[in-house]
Parts: sequence; structure tokens; C-alpha cells
Amino acid sequence: MIIGMAKGASREAVDNVVKRAESLGLGVQLNLGTDRTVVAILGSTTGQISTDVFAVLPEVESVTRIMKPYKLAAREFKGRDSLVSVDGVEVGGKRIVVMAGPCAVESEEQLMEAARAVKASGASILRGGAFKPRTSPFSFHGLEEKGLELLVRAREAFGMPVVTEVVDPQAVDMVARSASILQVGSRNMQNFALLTNVGKSKRPVVLKRGFSCTITEWLTAADYLLAEGNEQVILCERGIRTFEDSTRFSLDISAIPVIKKASHLPIIVDPSHAAGHYSLVPAIARAAVAAGADGLLIEVHPNPKEALVDGLQSLTPSDFARLMDQLRAVAESVGRYI
Amino acid sequence: MIIGMAKGASREAVDNVVKRAESLGLGVQLNLGTDRTVVAILGSTTGQISTDVFAVLPEVESVTRIMKPYKLAAREFKGRDSLVSVDGVEVGGKRIVVMAGPCAVESEEQLMEAARAVKASGASILRGGAFKPRTSPFSFHGLEEKGLELLVRAREAFGMPVVTEVVDPQAVDMVARSASILQVGSRNMQNFALLTNVGKSKRPVVLKRGFSCTITEWLTAADYLLAEGNEQVILCERGIRTFEDSTRFSLDISAIPVIKKASHLPIIVDPSHAAGHYSLVPAIARAAVAAGADGLLIEVHPNPKEALVDGLQSLTPSDFARLMDQLRAVAESVGRYI
Amino acid sequence: MIIGMAKGASREAVDNVVKRAESLGLGVQLNLGTDRTVVAILGSTTGQISTDVFAVLPEVESVTRIMKPYKLAAREFKGRDSLVSVDGVEVGGKRIVVMAGPCAVESEEQLMEAARAVKASGASILRGGAFKPRTSPFSFHGLEEKGLELLVRAREAFGMPVVTEVVDPQAVDMVARSASILQVGSRNMQNFALLTNVGKSKRPVVLKRGFSCTITEWLTAADYLLAEGNEQVILCERGIRTFEDSTRFSLDISAIPVIKKASHLPIIVDPSHAAGHYSLVPAIARAAVAAGADGLLIEVHPNPKEALVDGLQSLTPSDFARLMDQLRAVAESVGRYI
Amino acid sequence: MIIGMAKGASREAVDNVVKRAESLGLGVQLNLGTDRTVVAILGSTTGQISTDVFAVLPEVESVTRIMKPYKLAAREFKGRDSLVSVDGVEVGGKRIVVMAGPCAVESEEQLMEAARAVKASGASILRGGAFKPRTSPFSFHGLEEKGLELLVRAREAFGMPVVTEVVDPQAVDMVARSASILQVGSRNMQNFALLTNVGKSKRPVVLKRGFSCTITEWLTAADYLLAEGNEQVILCERGIRTFEDSTRFSLDISAIPVIKKASHLPIIVDPSHAAGHYSLVPAIARAAVAAGADGLLIEVHPNPKEALVDGLQSLTPSDFARLMDQLRAVAESVGRYI
Repeated sequence: MIIGMAKGASREAVDNVVKRAESLGLGVQLNLGTDRTVVAILGSTTGQISTDVFAVLPEVESVTRIMKPYKLAAREFKGRDSLVSVDGVEVGGKRIVVMAGPCAVESEEQLMEAARAVKASGASILRGGAFKPRTSPFSFHGLEEKGLELLVRAREAFGMPVVTEVVDPQAVDMVARSASILQVGSRNMQNFALLTNVGKSKRPVVLKRGFSCTITEWLTAADYLLAEGNEQVILCERGIRTFEDSTRFSLDISAIPVIKKASHLPIIVDPSHAAGHYSLVPAIARAAVAAGADGLLIEVHPNPKEALVDGLQSLTPSDFARLMDQLRAVAESVGRYI
Repeated sequence: MIIGMAKGASREAVDNVVKRAESLGLGVQLNLGTDRTVVAILGSTTGQISTDVFAVLPEVESVTRIMKPYKLAAREFKGRDSLVSVDGVEVGGKRIVVMAGPCAVESEEQLMEAARAVKASGASILRGGAFKPRTSPFSFHGLEEKGLELLVRAREAFGMPVVTEVVDPQAVDMVARSASILQVGSRNMQNFALLTNVGKSKRPVVLKRGFSCTITEWLTAADYLLAEGNEQVILCERGIRTFEDSTRFSLDISAIPVIKKASHLPIIVDPSHAAGHYSLVPAIARAAVAAGADGLLIEVHPNPKEALVDGLQSLTPSDFARLMDQLRAVAESVGRYI
Repeated sequence: MIIGMAKGASREAVDNVVKRAESLGLGVQLNLGTDRTVVAILGSTTGQISTDVFAVLPEVESVTRIMKPYKLAAREFKGRDSLVSVDGVEVGGKRIVVMAGPCAVESEEQLMEAARAVKASGASILRGGAFKPRTSPFSFHGLEEKGLELLVRAREAFGMPVVTEVVDPQAVDMVARSASILQVGSRNMQNFALLTNVGKSKRPVVLKRGFSCTITEWLTAADYLLAEGNEQVILCERGIRTFEDSTRFSLDISAIPVIKKASHLPIIVDPSHAAGHYSLVPAIARAAVAAGADGLLIEVHPNPKEALVDGLQSLTPSDFARLMDQLRAVAESVGRYI
Repeated sequence: MIIGMAKGASREAVDNVVKRAESLGLGVQLNLGTDRTVVAILGSTTGQISTDVFAVLPEVESVTRIMKPYKLAAREFKGRDSLVSVDGVEVGGKRIVVMAGPCAVESEEQLMEAARAVKASGASILRGGAFKPRTSPFSFHGLEEKGLELLVRAREAFGMPVVTEVVDPQAVDMVARSASILQVGSRNMQNFALLTNVGKSKRPVVLKRGFSCTITEWLTAADYLLAEGNEQVILCERGIRTFEDSTRFSLDISAIPVIKKASHLPIIVDPSHAAGHYSLVPAIARAAVAAGADGLLIEVHPNPKEALVDGLQSLTPSDFARLMDQLRAVAESVGRYI
């Protein structure tokens, strides 16, 4: 249930609502807007409680039953679009934020060269994987701690925030010390122990959509982060699993307008993992910007042919530079910029 | 197998290739390009025949085994993009062609009003269903012949070509007398009797993708049309069936660059059926143009709330006008126009 | 809406209901049960009509709104299981009916040998395709009329009913002259022109599930057949398209109990097309019988390695004989026999 | 690569193979069969190494390149079926093992009543969730440690091994102290940190298939457990996500014969989560046994209407008793018993 307090409602009135909720064994979360406070009533039994219980309290203006399983990520809970701020780069505003870099950090040379190239072309955040979740235990799993160190070095050298994946709840603190943004990968979207720890870290998060999860499940997973008080959540569409096999995954372009209606959270798109082939990346990236995405997450490798992971879907620096020019034009056509 | 003749190869040399193929029980189809002839060798047994059989013939330059099941729709068969010309409107060129109108023709007033509105906003082709394939036998199936008459009247009144669906192989000739473009719907993409008759009609065709068919199957279905000598084929992506339920279907945006690589045929996008909700149509339409689609097929109804079919996904004339302005800007950003 | 008349209601009372429905522009279909008449009220506008309109009429006992789009295939319309009788073989009773034979009729020798073998092992109906819908126009499409002739010869020689596919609405009459059962294939489940003609033929029909159609859509397609007065409908589950690629399709075993709850129609299972590989057929066939299927449709070829179509999924006669022994045991364990 | 040593090869010869592999930076895992040793060569670069490198070594009989990404779970690595032994109950043998009990442990009374009932009907292992992964952070997440204590009590009271889920890599040791079998849930099939810790625990594991993971990915996930030296792995098919919405998931019945061909690991089936409705459970359970499953995992609740989680898919004790009778008959029909 979402309770809208009257404009300028007193702190006491809000406390009353909170106490009533707690007396019923329910949790609460407050959204102290600039002119109106909104209270989310949480718990799996809210369906059995009459809205009147809250409607009768003083200075309560509206009580809305949210039948969606997600509450904190819902637009009803927070009318204004959320902005996520990362070391001065804002995600969710007029500027479209491009995060680019190699799939996996492989060496200092590779990372530095990639960082230099993507920065020169206008990317504002550097991506790079230190811990790689791989389907087989016998594949390359990233440089791990060594990779984190290199990311810190690149961040300092180029003054770019870095985004990197965390795969183990036990490692969240360690990764959070190096990363500007934590990434929760597709296979971990419903890894609730990980989500809880990442929520507690209070770090900005990129929450990738599970490749077989509905948008509703995705926003409910975001609630795990938000419920820990971490409001710095960026959603990332990266393709869903379908029967079509000419691409690795099918990018769900409609997810962009659906999320914009249903949620206040910013959404970015990863065209590289969806496509699985570099030649398809530019068209999908342009489409994402035209559809209203707030950013992109793109794989760029100085030498894709020698990449240890996912070389086929990585752009070369010069392909990336060309794409950025295209994206600037498309961004402008929808009233935004890069 | 695709056989490339040498530049300026003689007619006799081409005939030799044809005869050799026929002696092996195989079919052939010629693409007499301006400077080079290409011969497609057709039949399910080509896999068992050595390429040398043709490579040794005079003036044969190259013999390529096409492992894809489609042959005539393949880019290997025809290097240049196909242009489909409909009463002076060209699909597949620099101009992005917008086909718009009601899902079903309901009455003269409704159709005329829709036609006037979409023409005023810049659509170049009028869409409208006279025969509606419906999942239940007890639903409205369209005005049928009466609907065709109204389409002819609208075509003449507004000077716009019309596109309308044909659902029965027995009705192809009748529909072809009224329609500028025949549409084969998603549920009929593998209705081979219908495809054959539509191929024989030599009318321009919009071939919608089966909602659960792969791109490979789609291009193979196009081969049915092309094999009858009908080269006026326009592909239409309209969403595929996935587990996601916030949209009716999931528009496969990646199909656009995949088709552009694999085939010479133009591709348009139907955002209305994919989305299932008018509020999502503009974002998907913009994305399609940015990704490189050659056109759009959009449902517009003078009064969506009273539509007999699919009202929820229809735009009002004023929504459509606003969308066309957006699309003009996006088209320009990718070097095209509407 | 489904209207249950009182036990022993007069013909006049039933007529009253029919007239009232027709006055509202609605269709009706009667199920004259042995002790109670049920009237289905048909049309897409029944949702707007109050149930009271019928409840007030004399001898009307109950009025139930069916929110499912299918009506005639619904269990609510006909409480008792439908039995389909084909030349003395009953589908839907205690006996599990096995239909077996080659995917495509290739020659008299092949067909006769297959028929002899499957009959010897206990199959009661012979399957064999004369018209093959193929994804490519350049593949083998069956022996067509010649194939029908051979089927008639085999039917007579072995005294077995034959089931064969019809793919073109124009060919229904021709095929119906030779076949004991018409088969509508997966790709044609929503080919409404074909369904209408097959319905009119009044021949027993095997209606295969569209490989991407929901059970609800399947039963609604059955309504097309039933609405033409053809009650001889056998449903056939043959696998749905999913992301899993170790089998050609994923057999939806749950469809069996779902159909048994939702509909009165018998359901059989085609393990061959689902599996795509002969080695998987026995396990799936046993599972189908254990789950409650009323029959099986199995591909058997005297020499699978030389089959023109789908050899990999065909059983040899000796594999089939072994499978039949297994199936007899499983059938008995669920209180049925073969 | 899989290296088969000659019958009776010396320890020295095996060591030679191991050393050669290690000199190339590759890992190895041995399968010391009773009459023949098999060596799996592990690592993502095995594709680049010639088989001759090993074939030339003394007493090496065969070198097979396994192109499948999974190695230790492959039948090529271990010819004989694996048997998993849990406190005297053997999974993978002639006896079909039924694991039954409530979805979530709710109270001592509930658990004891369920345990008594399922034991009386012939279940050999008790299931019950103490830690429940839930899509929403505001849902009931299980009794946690308290739930584990109750499971231990039930195990002792009824002498039945217990299986319970572990969701957090940090909690593996704690859960392993109480549980006879650890369960890795569908959403965690690719939670590699969890798999690694569960592998290290050396406890018997039920590894549920990710609801959108291919069979190949599933076996590759099993490799994570096997690579830690934990050979007590039981696979569990529990339904995959498809477009069909009449069931919660679509049980992939074909997975049973596919796994039996591809792997040596035992496979059980969870009909309850797949179906999502108690009325469909018996048919699916019978099908699983007929198809060759080695066991079942079934939800039984003393009072499903008051279940805190998944009541709709739970059987009552009397329904379960009836089902067990059916299953005994089906098991016997395929040469097994319960």
C-alpha cells in the first residue's frame, strides 16, 4: 500500500502512520519528497488489510493498493525520475551516459588503451570485468583482485568512474572499495543474498535484467536493493532468451518505455551481450537511444581478435568512435545529448 | 549453390550452367544483374553435389555453397538492395515509408477519416483490414468484400496505395484486384498454399514474420514468394512470442540489422501489434527507424475507444501527427527522411 | 455463455432460448445430451449482455459466463468426454490408440512394408503424409495425389484407417475422399480458411497444436471445427518451441492434464516431431501414456536412413515393436490397454 | 579432452599424463574406474592442443575431444551411472526415490504431521524449506535457523534423511550441519560462488535446473560441483519458462532421456513447481517415472489452504497417498519399484 500524506503534513502525522503499520507487523519505507511525504507499507500480508486502517488517520490524503509485487521501484511510490550520481556523472538526466570498455580486464596495457580510446570518443564511465561469472568452471574467471587494482589505476589515470561486476555476496565490500558502480549480472538478478549485500553497500548499482525474467520480476529484484536504503539503482536491459538464434539474446527494446511508465529508476541498455556480434551493436545502440534509454553499456577492446572473453561482440576503438558520432545525432533528435 | 558468372559472360555460358543443373534434376533461378549474372541452383539435394560440377564450366567465376535453407532471399544471390515500387512509392530507398490506418475497416466514415488524417500527417500508404484472421470463430472477421470496396474508394479519394491482408489462397485474386499491396499475416507466414498463390499474383507483398518463427524460417518463407517470380517482397517484423507479458509480443529490434546483413529485401516494422498498447508505440517506432528499418506499419483509428478490433494499440490522429514529427527528426539523424 | 436447461426441458423452452439469442444478434449451438440440453451462446459481444436475459426464461436452470475465448471445446459445454469413432476404432475411450507409419509416403513398397510392420506390432491406424508442408519451396513436398492413392491401397490391404495431412483449403474435399482422418498440422493451427473447410468436411480430424500457441488458442482453434458441426476432433500435442535446443521442440507433457480439465476432447501425443531423434521417442511415448494421453502418433520407417523426410526421428519396425511392448505395460499400469 | 588409459595401466603411466597436462597449464581430474582409469583434461584452452600430445604417451588407449562445455558430468568421462547414497537411501538405482514434504517449514506441528504422512505413504526422504528465496523482499523468507532445527528434529523422529535449500554461499556450512542433502534452487543454478561452496561441502546435492537454462548449461553447472570433488550430484528438472501460461512452468519431460544419454548423473523431477496447481501434479509425476526419472520431489502439506508459500501446488496427505499407489504401478511397468 502507498499512503500519500497531505501537502505539508506534520512529522507527527507521518509517525502515526508508521506506528499503525508497525503495530500490524508491517514494514514501512518513507519517501520524503520536497512537498509531500509518501509512505510505502511493506509486507506480504498487506493484501489482507483494509485501506481504511490508514485512511482514517489525520493528514492522510490517499491510500492506494499496489497490486504489483514491487513497491519501492514503482512510479506510484516516487513520482519524479530518480537520478543516480556517480562521481559527478549523472545517470537519468538529459545526458545519455555511455559506459564502455573491455568485457574482462586482461592486463594493464589492454585496460589503459581501452580507457584512453573510449574516453577520447566521449564515454563517461569505464567498464571492465575483474570477476567474470562463467558457465564452465574451466574457463577464464578474470584477474580478480589484480583486476580491481588495475581498474583503480585506470580510474585515477583518466578521471573516469568505473563499473565492475560483483558475483559473490562475501566479496561486496572488497569490490566496493575499488568500484564506482557495482554491477549485478544477469545470472545474479535473483541472487537475493548478493542483492541484500549490494543494497547495504549503498554504492550505485547497475542491475542487469535476468535473461529470462519478466520486467515485473526485475523491478521486484530492484526492491531488494531499495529496501536496504540504496536508492542508487540503474536498471540495465541486456537481452532476453528466446527461440531466435541469430543473436545471442533478443534485446527487449519495449522494456524501455515499459520501465519508464512503471518505475522512476533510470534504464540503460547493453547492446553487446544481446547481439553477440559486433556488427549488430551500432543498430541496437541507436535504437536504444531513440527509444529513450538513459545510457549504454558497450564492450570495446583494443584488439577484439585476441580478447580472452567475448571478443566477437566487442567493438574496436575506431568502430566505437564512429558509433559515438551516430549516437550523438540520434540523441539530439530526441532532445538529449551525450 | 550460387554460381557467379564472369563479368560479361555469354548467354551461351549461362545456358550451359542451366542445362547442367537441369540434367541433375535441379531447378535454377537467374539474377541477371547489370554487369554480372548470378545463378541460384535450387533443390533439396544440392548438398550432395560437388561444386566442381559447375566450376569446370566455361565463364563460371565462383561457386558458393549456401548452407542457409533460403536461397533467393539471400544477399549472396543479389548483392544490391531490392527496391519495391508501389504506385510510385518506393520501399527500400532513402525515404522511410509510413503505412498507417485502422486495424479493421469498419465503415466508410471511419476509413475516410483515418485516411485523411494519416495522409495529412505524412503517411504514404493506407492500411486497413477487410479480412481479419481471428483466433475465435465467434469474433468480428472484418467487412470482407464490402471492406475491399471501401479501400478502393479511399485509395481513389486520397491517391494513396492501400495495403490489406489476404488470408485464404482462394481469395488472392479477388483481394489483388483491390489492393496495391497484399499482406500475409503472422499466423500465415508458413501457410505455403497462400504464399504460392500470392507469389503467382505478382503483387507487392508485405510478409509479416511468424510470431514464433526464426529469421531463417522467415527468409525461407520469402523464397516461396520469390520462387514464383514475385520480387516485390517487403518483410515486416511485428514482435515475437516470449515469456514477457507486459507487451503483447516482444519486438525483435535486432532483426533489422540481421536482415540487412542476410538479405537484400527491405524490412519494415509494425510497432502496434508488438506493443499491444498505444502508449508504447512511439518509442518502438523511433527505435525501428534508428535501427535502420525501411518503413513502419502503424495502427491509427479516428476513435480508438470504439474500435471493433485492437483499439488499445491504435493511435489517435493527433498522437500520430506528433509521432510523425518525432520520426522525421530520428530519420534525419540516420541520414534518411520520411 | 453456457445455458443449462432443466432436466427434461421441453423443445419449446429450448427454442425460446435460441430465439432470444438470435434476437440479440448472437449465434447458438446446442448440445442435446441424453438427459439435459446445454445451449452455447456465441458471439464476441456476449460479455456485454446480462445473464438475466436468459435466466428469466422458462426451464432455464443455469446461466454461466465463460470467460475463456473457446466455448464449444470447453468442458462446461459438454460434461462427458467426447469419443471419436474412425471406421470402428474409438479414440478417447479406455483403449489407447496408436497411429504409426512413415512421415512421408515415398513409394508403394515403403508404405506397404511400414503398414505391415506397424499393424503386426499393434498399431490401429496408419499414418503417412502425401502433402508435406516444408519450410523451403525447394524441398520434397510429398507424392501428393499419387501418395493419396497409395494410402487408399494400404488402407484396403491392411484394413487400417489412415490419417494424412491436408495443407490447402482448396484440397480438403480431395483429401477427404481418401483419408479416414484429416490432419491439420502445427503450422496451420491458425489457418482459419483451412479449419473452416475441414470443419465442413465432417471428417474426423487430428488438430495438431501450433508449436507456439497456448492451450487456450488451441482450444479456440478447435472451436472453428466444432462451429461447423464437426464434432470428430482429436487434439494432438507435438511439442512447443522453447529455448532448449537438445530436442527439436519441447513436448509439453502438462498439456495432457490441462486439456483433460479444460475440454471434453480426446488428446493424443506425437513424440517423434517433439524429440527430433529416434532415441528419445520411447521415453516420451511412455510418459504420454502415463500422463493420460488417449493415443500416440509415431513415425516408423522401414529404413530410416534412407527416408526422404525426418529420418532421424523415425523408429525402425523392430524399435517400434519393442516400444509397443513397453507401452502395453505402462497403459495397464494406468488402467488402460492398447 | 578425455583420455582413456589402457586396461590395467600403471600408476606411472597415469602420472605421466597428469604431468604433461600440468606442464601445459591444464587441470586434470581422474576417474579411477574398477578396470580402467579415465583422465579428464580441463581448461578453456584444450581446444588449441593437439590430441597427439597425449596419444603418444605410454599406455594411453584413446584421446577424445569433447566439444561439449561440460566434462566431468559427461557420460564420456564416466561410463557407469552414478549412484548417490544418502544415509542408506540410494538415488540412481532401481528404486525410485520419492522426496516429499512442505514447501516451507512453518512450525513443528506442520512439519511433523507432514513427515508422518509422507513416510506412511512410502516417501523415503523428507523435503522442507528453511531458507526460501522469494522474488520480493517483503515476502515470507522461511524460519531460517529455527527451520533447520525443526528439520533435524523431524529427521531424528522419523529416521528420514532431509533435503533443504541453501541460498547463500556464506551459509553452506551451517545448512550442511543439519541437512542430509543440500538443494541448489533454480534461480541459483548459475550462482557460481554458491556452487563452489556446496561443492566443497562434499554433501549430496540436488541441483535444480535453472528455469531458463539449457541442458548443456545445467550439466556445465554440475561441473562446478564435480570439480570440487563432490560426486554426490542429483539433477532435478522442475520446469522451464515458456510462453504457455496454463502452468507455472513447462516441465521438460524430454530432459530425462536427454540427460540419460549425455550424463552419468541421476535425475529426479519436481512436478509441483512445474505445474503450479495440485490437480496437475499426479499426471506429471506418473509421466516422469514412465520416462525414466530416478526420483521425485513433491510438495505435501497437511493443510494446503493455510500454507504460507505455494499452497496451491501442494498435495494433501491423502492425495499423496493415492498418488503413491499410482506411482508404484507405473514404476513396476518400467521395471523399477518405489
